[in-house]
Amino acid sequence: MTFEIVSETRSHGGVQGVYSHASEATGTDMTFAAFVPGHRPGETLPVLWYLSGLTCTHANVMEKGEYRSACARHGIILIAPDTSPRGEHVPDADNEYDFGKGAGFYVDASQAPWDRHYRMRSYIEQELPELIAERFPADMQRQSIMGHSMGGHGALTIGLRNPDRFRSISAFSPIAAPSQVPWGTKALGRYLGQDQAAWREYDATSLVKDGARHDHILIDQGTADNFLEKQLKSEIFVSACEDAGLQPEVRMQDGYDHSYFFISTFMAEHVGWHAKHLKRE
Amino acid sequence: MTFEIVSETRSHGGVQGVYSHASEATGTDMTFAAFVPGHRPGETLPVLWYLSGLTCTHANVMEKGEYRSACARHGIILIAPDTSPRGEHVPDADNEYDFGKGAGFYVDASQAPWDRHYRMRSYIEQELPELIAERFPADMQRQSIMGHSMGGHGALTIGLRNPDRFRSISAFSPIAAPSQVPWGTKALGRYLGQDQAAWREYDATSLVKDGARHDHILIDQGTADNFLEKQLKSEIFVSACEDAGLQPEVRMQDGYDHSYFFISTFMAEHVGWHAKHLKRE
Repeated sequence: MTFEIVSETRSHGGVQGVYSHASEATGTDMTFAAFVPGHRPGETLPVLWYLSGLTCTHANVMEKGEYRSACARHGIILIAPDTSPRGEHVPDADNEYDFGKGAGFYVDASQAPWDRHYRMRSYIEQELPELIAERFPADMQRQSIMGHSMGGHGALTIGLRNPDRFRSISAFSPIAAPSQVPWGTKALGRYLGQDQAAWREYDATSLVKDGARHDHILIDQGTADNFLEKQLKSEIFVSACEDAGLQPEVRMQDGYDHSYFFISTFMAEHVGWHAKHLKRE
Repeated sequence: MTFEIVSETRSHGGVQGVYSHASEATGTDMTFAAFVPGHRPGETLPVLWYLSGLTCTHANVMEKGEYRSACARHGIILIAPDTSPRGEHVPDADNEYDFGKGAGFYVDASQAPWDRHYRMRSYIEQELPELIAERFPADMQRQSIMGHSMGGHGALTIGLRNPDRFRSISAFSPIAAPSQVPWGTKALGRYLGQDQAAWREYDATSLVKDGARHDHILIDQGTADNFLEKQLKSEIFVSACEDAGLQPEVRMQDGYDHSYFFISTFMAEHVGWHAKHLKRE
């Protein structure tokens, strides 16, 4: 497998890297960011995944997320993948920020023409973890996952489908019931087809209704988030959790919006919360 | 004076704002960023100025500088001005990243065609502080100044010229002897003319040689900074300080480069160091 170091830069006592590799899952080159804190030779560190939102690449959280200080303090590797396959040969939706490139929704698409390259579920769940285990000082027995907006949807669904792999799940302003909102019905309908039965494993609320469980879920949601009412609907997810006897910690943060000014405010708390779970024996 | 709120966003318990106003000093609209931590009604807070480097606007440090957490903790307002006048009517140097727009070098230009708009010294030293005092909950008796690269040059020169106004000065990888490096001789020569006597008040090393003094100077410089040898030359400034009996704290940071990955690593330490001086009675 080709693997290229795009850049490695010293930061907060560790190394912020950007890497590119040929992905079998997506049939494209994929780029991701990885922060590895300073550590002793031979030491392995827990892994925290950060999945980004619509229009983002690996770079947004790397530049604006303010995670390195907390990850260095707790000794945690943070991996930030891209949000879709990229490249001229990859089909895209012209002038739609919420579908196609930058909007992979962490699904394995089943519908042409998307099914060839839009396989972000396989990429995130299988291929990239294998590469991380091979190339980085990672303790793959200790993983947690987080994300923002579309990436919050990704973190919740991937985490709920893999509760034994991910010790804790957190999300900033997640699309928590995608089958019931415009962003989600558009994306799931076109990637997966109109049979909504196929959507359920890509909808955190449906997963919980269908029996998925996780004991450690944290959600921060800004009250001034323009997308809260129409697109995010964390209250639907919370209601499903209550019906299922789950107790996610959901914090409505007064006056915060949907931006990285919000995410960066609570990033250190999220990393610290994950650290508590990642360091459990 | 016109004054426009471009945006105000809640972050780290305070407000990160971007503002625009018609500047008399530059004859243009000017944009700046201001972070105001949460505070009690009527309370005023110390002010820390951050001057940015070549090619930057107010936005670079606002997005990548990771200062809000520390400023919120210490109760300090951070002001990030632009690096030059902007607008279609402002003369520029085509395809030169190190002169013209984005490269004002914090001087009042004396040479045509630059002398009409390139008046960043007057803007930063006089006009913008008056606006900050008028519009923000600022305690103007408590100010400090910092900057990066060209902005480190700006912080050192403005701080050294105004030791009674600025309690402390810090710089990341400053252009510390501009009269002796390509970036500086190019910019000072074209903005100020070829008589180097006029350059001395815009050169931190010359200012110290000519008698300027400040007791509280902190410099962080990465050892892997590509610009260190040719453009920055902190060692020339340090030598002049030693000859003058000054003791700036200069820290060579192993393996760090010239980027915001470096700046953000030590930002909280700089803010904390300034806080110590800003809170002295």
